[in-house]
Amino acid sequence: MISIVILGSGNVAKHLFDVFFGREGINILQVWGRNKAQLSYFKDRTIISDDQTKLLEADIYIIAVSDDAIPDVARTLVDKKGLVVHTSGSVPLNALDSKNRRGVFYPLQSFSKGRKIDFKSVPICIETETKGDLDLLLRLAGSISDDVREISSDQRKSLHLAAVFVNNFTNHLFQIGNEICGEHRLPFDILLPLIRETVQKLDHLNPLDAQTGPARRNDQKTMENHLHQLDNKNYKDIYALLSKSISEKYGQKL
Amino acid sequence: MISIVILGSGNVAKHLFDVFFGREGINILQVWGRNKAQLSYFKDRTIISDDQTKLLEADIYIIAVSDDAIPDVARTLVDKKGLVVHTSGSVPLNALDSKNRRGVFYPLQSFSKGRKIDFKSVPICIETETKGDLDLLLRLAGSISDDVREISSDQRKSLHLAAVFVNNFTNHLFQIGNEICGEHRLPFDILLPLIRETVQKLDHLNPLDAQTGPARRNDQKTMENHLHQLDNKNYKDIYALLSKSISEKYGQKL
Repeated sequence: MISIVILGSGNVAKHLFDVFFGREGINILQVWGRNKAQLSYFKDRTIISDDQTKLLEADIYIIAVSDDAIPDVARTLVDKKGLVVHTSGSVPLNALDSKNRRGVFYPLQSFSKGRKIDFKSVPICIETETKGDLDLLLRLAGSISDDVREISSDQRKSLHLAAVFVNNFTNHLFQIGNEICGEHRLPFDILLPLIRETVQKLDHLNPLDAQTGPARRNDQKTMENHLHQLDNKNYKDIYALLSKSISEKYGQKL
Repeated sequence: MISIVILGSGNVAKHLFDVFFGREGINILQVWGRNKAQLSYFKDRTIISDDQTKLLEADIYIIAVSDDAIPDVARTLVDKKGLVVHTSGSVPLNALDSKNRRGVFYPLQSFSKGRKIDFKSVPICIETETKGDLDLLLRLAGSISDDVREISSDQRKSLHLAAVFVNNFTNHLFQIGNEICGEHRLPFDILLPLIRETVQKLDHLNPLDAQTGPARRNDQKTMENHLHQLDNKNYKDIYALLSKSISEKYGQKL
């Protein structure tokens, strides 16, 4: 049995709580958080506390708070014997206190409020300082996911950057498509089959080979027409810059 | 029974041929194309021809050639009684010859070589000049898709622009993620669950509400770190511009 204490009461803390709660071999002893109102989410299922001096002894402390708050929260754990891990993509392992056994438990996924995630396929990126702690985190992560990987702090930093491109920026392109549709009395859902195919293709093709469109074939006339259609300055700039980047990638100087 | 002649032998022509071939109520009389080698793809299943003077009489002529070639191909059909349609997102209906009955049959999807498409869910955008021709195209499109919509030339032009954002540009962001992974000995497939969730979210949330990430919460420190990690000038510019666009969209001036 692995006993855990979760520190944090936000979105990631809730998702982790829900996936670990009631799982065989895992016992959530306590959830700690600063925000009493948010703690009520957990109150019927475990011990809750907003007092950092009352943390229970556990095998693993999972810090699921905003990046900036990680060092402060970690400092309250210096006298604990359990393994202390954070869940951030962009914070190095050594942001945790060196008096502790330290590790990272980073689920590479985007967590939306109220949206259930199937953790089985979520890559859990783990990092530790000793073989013993690695085995412990492998057991913890393996209890919820089939895809557990040992990833260094440096690699994780790059992964987080890549995630911004494929998740946050991609969503913004969807939003631009949404706005263009809205301006011409077209429902956004007309684009969904195309969006799904853009992603499903990746099961068989790498994105370098999957690239199509006016910029890929250097179709100047279509690109000029498209730029002409755009009023929003940012969207015009995005169209021009992404087209330039694609054209240069495929060896055609604009 | 609707008889059709397909003009063109490229990617879209092949996909349309394959989905119409053998379908109840549809008879592909002939495929015409300039490129003899490419015509061989169709030769065992219909009459093929590279001679524009030998086109058969059909209910519908489907022009599936590159945008620039559409007017030339259309001109060879001026003496035909059948409905002449093209399949382009960005070419207006009136690029076809006004001596003909004219229409547009635009499947809003990205067609890759050798990749089978499930047409049932592909939106087919149709446009005609008369009610009679609309009914004919509705029957043709309805035979392969459950999602047939009447879309004007103006709307279709915007749709094509939106498609470039959500398909071509999105794929380029995937390629950038792919490169960042490659540079740090990370397999691209580690990003696939995140990419899939980015899209699956759209079934429940519109992209405006689904936006997350450092630019959305105006996290300057993370954005600066990310910019610092990027060497490629275009990718750095893309990061800065998309972050600026997101921040401004959500009311935070950078």
